[in-house]
Amino acid sequence: MSFDSTVHQKAVDLAKLTYQITGSAGSGHPSTGASLVHLVTVLLYQHMRYEPMNPGHPSSDRLVLSEGHAVPVLYAAMADLGIAYRAATDAGFGTGDLKPLDREAALTLRAIDSPVDGHPNPPLGFPFFDAATGSLGQGLSVAAGLALAAKHDGLDKRVFCLIGDGESREGQIWEAVDFIKDHDLKAVCPVFNANDYAQSDKVADQQESAALVRKLEAVGYTVLRIDGHNPRAVAEAFSRHAQDQHNPSAPPVAIVADTVKGWGAPSQQGNGHHGQAPTGDTLQAVLDELAATEKQIGAAADTPLKRDLMSPNKPEAATVNAAPSFDEALKQFGQEAVLEKGKLATRKAYGVALRALGHARSDVLALDADVRGSTNAADFAKDDQLTDRFVECRIAEQNMASVALGLSAAGKVAMASTFGKFLTRAYDQIEMAVLSGVPLKLVGSHAGCTLGPDGPSQMGLADVAWFRGFSTMKFPNGKPGFTVLTPADAYACYALVQQMAAADAPVYLRTMRPDTEFLYAANTKFEFGGHEVLVEGRDLLVAAQGYMVHEANAALEKLDAAGIDATLVDLYSLPFDEEAIADLANDNNGMVLTVEDNYGGAMGSAVADALAATGDGFTVNQMHVERLPKSAKSADEMLDFCGLSADHIAKAAMGMLELTPA
Amino acid sequence: MSFDSTVHQKAVDLAKLTYQITGSAGSGHPSTGASLVHLVTVLLYQHMRYEPMNPGHPSSDRLVLSEGHAVPVLYAAMADLGIAYRAATDAGFGTGDLKPLDREAALTLRAIDSPVDGHPNPPLGFPFFDAATGSLGQGLSVAAGLALAAKHDGLDKRVFCLIGDGESREGQIWEAVDFIKDHDLKAVCPVFNANDYAQSDKVADQQESAALVRKLEAVGYTVLRIDGHNPRAVAEAFSRHAQDQHNPSAPPVAIVADTVKGWGAPSQQGNGHHGQAPTGDTLQAVLDELAATEKQIGAAADTPLKRDLMSPNKPEAATVNAAPSFDEALKQFGQEAVLEKGKLATRKAYGVALRALGHARSDVLALDADVRGSTNAADFAKDDQLTDRFVECRIAEQNMASVALGLSAAGKVAMASTFGKFLTRAYDQIEMAVLSGVPLKLVGSHAGCTLGPDGPSQMGLADVAWFRGFSTMKFPNGKPGFTVLTPADAYACYALVQQMAAADAPVYLRTMRPDTEFLYAANTKFEFGGHEVLVEGRDLLVAAQGYMVHEANAALEKLDAAGIDATLVDLYSLPFDEEAIADLANDNNGMVLTVEDNYGGAMGSAVADALAATGDGFTVNQMHVERLPKSAKSADEMLDFCGLSADHIAKAAMGMLELTPA
Repeated sequence: MSFDSTVHQKAVDLAKLTYQITGSAGSGHPSTGASLVHLVTVLLYQHMRYEPMNPGHPSSDRLVLSEGHAVPVLYAAMADLGIAYRAATDAGFGTGDLKPLDREAALTLRAIDSPVDGHPNPPLGFPFFDAATGSLGQGLSVAAGLALAAKHDGLDKRVFCLIGDGESREGQIWEAVDFIKDHDLKAVCPVFNANDYAQSDKVADQQESAALVRKLEAVGYTVLRIDGHNPRAVAEAFSRHAQDQHNPSAPPVAIVADTVKGWGAPSQQGNGHHGQAPTGDTLQAVLDELAATEKQIGAAADTPLKRDLMSPNKPEAATVNAAPSFDEALKQFGQEAVLEKGKLATRKAYGVALRALGHARSDVLALDADVRGSTNAADFAKDDQLTDRFVECRIAEQNMASVALGLSAAGKVAMASTFGKFLTRAYDQIEMAVLSGVPLKLVGSHAGCTLGPDGPSQMGLADVAWFRGFSTMKFPNGKPGFTVLTPADAYACYALVQQMAAADAPVYLRTMRPDTEFLYAANTKFEFGGHEVLVEGRDLLVAAQGYMVHEANAALEKLDAAGIDATLVDLYSLPFDEEAIADLANDNNGMVLTVEDNYGGAMGSAVADALAATGDGFTVNQMHVERLPKSAKSADEMLDFCGLSADHIAKAAMGMLELTPA
Repeated sequence: MSFDSTVHQKAVDLAKLTYQITGSAGSGHPSTGASLVHLVTVLLYQHMRYEPMNPGHPSSDRLVLSEGHAVPVLYAAMADLGIAYRAATDAGFGTGDLKPLDREAALTLRAIDSPVDGHPNPPLGFPFFDAATGSLGQGLSVAAGLALAAKHDGLDKRVFCLIGDGESREGQIWEAVDFIKDHDLKAVCPVFNANDYAQSDKVADQQESAALVRKLEAVGYTVLRIDGHNPRAVAEAFSRHAQDQHNPSAPPVAIVADTVKGWGAPSQQGNGHHGQAPTGDTLQAVLDELAATEKQIGAAADTPLKRDLMSPNKPEAATVNAAPSFDEALKQFGQEAVLEKGKLATRKAYGVALRALGHARSDVLALDADVRGSTNAADFAKDDQLTDRFVECRIAEQNMASVALGLSAAGKVAMASTFGKFLTRAYDQIEMAVLSGVPLKLVGSHAGCTLGPDGPSQMGLADVAWFRGFSTMKFPNGKPGFTVLTPADAYACYALVQQMAAADAPVYLRTMRPDTEFLYAANTKFEFGGHEVLVEGRDLLVAAQGYMVHEANAALEKLDAAGIDATLVDLYSLPFDEEAIADLANDNNGMVLTVEDNYGGAMGSAVADALAATGDGFTVNQMHVERLPKSAKSADEMLDFCGLSADHIAKAAMGMLELTPA
């Protein structure tokens, strides 16, 4: 019984410290943590392979805490085990030396000057965690991404994921369950913590442990249903996972652990204790209950718990070469006919760029959600030398985003594409990647209303506004929360995709469905934060992005005919160089017309922000989609419907200059 | 065999017309439509109860086409049956008389001047559809919302939902499957169209029909697996659903239909035909193949298909009374102590307002995603007279948003709440509600960084930027795509919630976690598009929203002490009266400081947009969150960390006036 009694002892100790930590903070979710004490003990003291002072080591096992609110029990274990966190310096959180977490530090939970945050928050300095969690249902997908990276790197790693039963109502959990089966990611060990209570109430029948077992079995998993407070049962389940992980013919394993929310302290059990952190006398009463439990179950640290050794292998360094120029890439791929045509949709240029990138860098993976023929990620998927690094995520965008987070956290360049509209579905997941400090690389195709025939359910229309929100925020490294790129032609798209791969902050690239004429050449320089002046004038500055650069160009011809000398700038990047744009505006009498084919609050608004901050009396007239689009057979018809045709642009420009159109 | 031969005949006819319609458009997804021809025939010609010229009748059965790209086959049936659409007039689509759809109109698919759109687009004039679909995986949740409304209205209705096998990879489908079971919504008849192919490839093993059967059975459904091209099997399955629907002890029924993508035309079957619309000779060859199939299967319209009669019942008119004032409501609910305290969190005011609203209007339902204790929707749930109208959606926000869409489409006032951060997860679904023209009412709590202890994974930070994108677009009725409300105190929140209920366009209300002092009184008027001038000055205009109104108020005291006479406006609504704000700015030397506790691209940006458009030389300095937040024990600490405290605001104001802080 010595293993049992030792695990029980540790479990009680962790439960006590969990209540003390949350008691000190005055808030938190200790009862959820208490339901996990045996699982966490067996994992962190016996089964997980990691170096306490180097938990981010590339070949260490990983733990994703999908139910992020349970984190105090992890802090308790980390404080006991001396697992490292990176201390804060004057330069910010996570910038100092590695230090072992101790009890004292853990007790600073949720304080403004503490890295011990309310939910896992890796940028504050916790390399033990790969992902910020706390918005539920995402962890299993992250775990799948970490396991997929390990598979590509040939690392014998295990990726444990603790999932709440209540949160398994989130459909994304089941997307991840399917994905793990598709890709045979048996390194993932999903552990459902079936403590039977969510925040408001008991979980639904469909999230009870018996139902979770049935659902997992329906997908073809080997499901181990165990008593989550029985040390040997827990250890045996983890051992069974380790065994089946290396059996090619075994299905993936999932563990469903029946646990007690508020384990060890009867007063904290049942409904109504979620998010309640006892303090003062109530805390003391809980600690007394835990002491009583300790005696009752014969807890005694009479046997040392030994951890498995970490696998010593490390990933090989990635090959990183420069990609050829767009022209060269087209020739290599037998697509030189494109050069003669002189036009190509940016979504097609993305396919070429992605393929060239895949050949240049061995750390690149391409992900897509069953629309690779439309996003042109198919160019990568169909290439014999790259197809192994293509990840078909099927129609499940949330899972794709979180898998990309996991891959990125493991050092991969994960290029994830789908329609810009469908990425909207994963905005919560994308924001969690930002909070994780991970350089997500997203490609949203069919951006703007020029998509045409398929109609508004397929158009990216509010995407710029959302991503721009993040572009107004900076990471500690000075990089924006998101850089939003809308290239206007194939050359720009190709060049920016190559730069995306190297970017150390999140990037969102928007591509368009219709073919667009070449504006640039292989030697044109593009950069994050950059812009390109296409026409230099002096009467009016027209700022456009994407397809609208072409439409604005056509408008400039009309203006020219009317004697108006306008400047045209391709504002392909948000954020941009605000001073340079203000200078351009000043050179054009302070008259600015912005043109984009999505809803407002976007590029034009960013221009207005920049110019209004100067106090210099600019006039910024924004043109954007102001009505619900519909289907149209051509981009021209759609732009006319939305009041964004070259004629409309020219008319608006003349209106600003108080001229009447001819 | 006459029923069979007649259904076959109609199925072939619909397949032909489907190919002709998409051929005419030059794009679309006819092979998916062809897989549905027997299901659609048996449904629309036999089982669904509706009046062709009044398909939006409140007691008619409903059809939700979750796989929206299959819509041409529906247009084919509607054209054959003369189901009504609302014609366009000069005032726009959907504003004219009801007209029966005919073949000629159907052949205008995807044209700019046609209401026959590429995916279901109800605002163009199709009352047959309740929801815009085309972003996948959402229809079953909408169907659940429609069925829930019917249940509350005592209407004996059936709600059919056609779901693709590929799209059943979307986790939301399984959220809906769970939800239907929770709420025993047996009026919903989910039909999985298992044609075995998605866009890129065959579906995964986990989406094959056998797996779909196992998954549905794991949740406890009665699953009818049928040959989707066998007329009698299809009819019997629908009959079984009708029978079990009224059997209180029967579980919900789901149909899994094995079908053939490109049925009837072998050249269009197998992989690679998704989204391919044959034209010219290829189209003719397909029509020839269908003619051959017609002969081969003995198709013959030798028996009239009879439809069931529509249930004659109609919903009772809702009781709509005015709610009492906030003060009266507090007294009614025994919470008058709040009045003495003089402060209340807006999330708590939401609870009071929702409860008062529920008593005043019988058409109000409240939805929440397992955080009712935090959003305070619990006030409604716990009220004996209202609890039947509370809908616990558990931890599945996407399903909640689409259920709210369904409820709203059926005429209910569906107030859906969760943390603003978690609503992000449902942005795709919310945008589909906008495209559906449905007045969604959303409440996002814990808005902004003042949330404090729980950290950034629980904060609404990019929400204003996204919803504001929609506020720059208008519906045909002149209402904005979304109105975003951030009340600064309990009175404002209470008043605005009452107005939300009556709003005929989408509204997003943001509430805050911390208590805030009362700024207003029961007789203060609030309105969509409105603002409130709290302090009138002349040196500088400070515009703030939500919590930041209080912080700005404190800053004004400091400014006053420094001899600065600032104006403070509570800009609680986006969009707002731009002229009025410009006038206020002009009255304050054109100097404007905006203050919000979320990322940028939001309220301050809307102010910059409005002022920059005037060309009058305003200076707009925007303060917002510019770094990743973390946990903090208090709002004060968090605001200090983010550079948004009263001191920071005062300092920024002085900086604008080129004064040095004392």
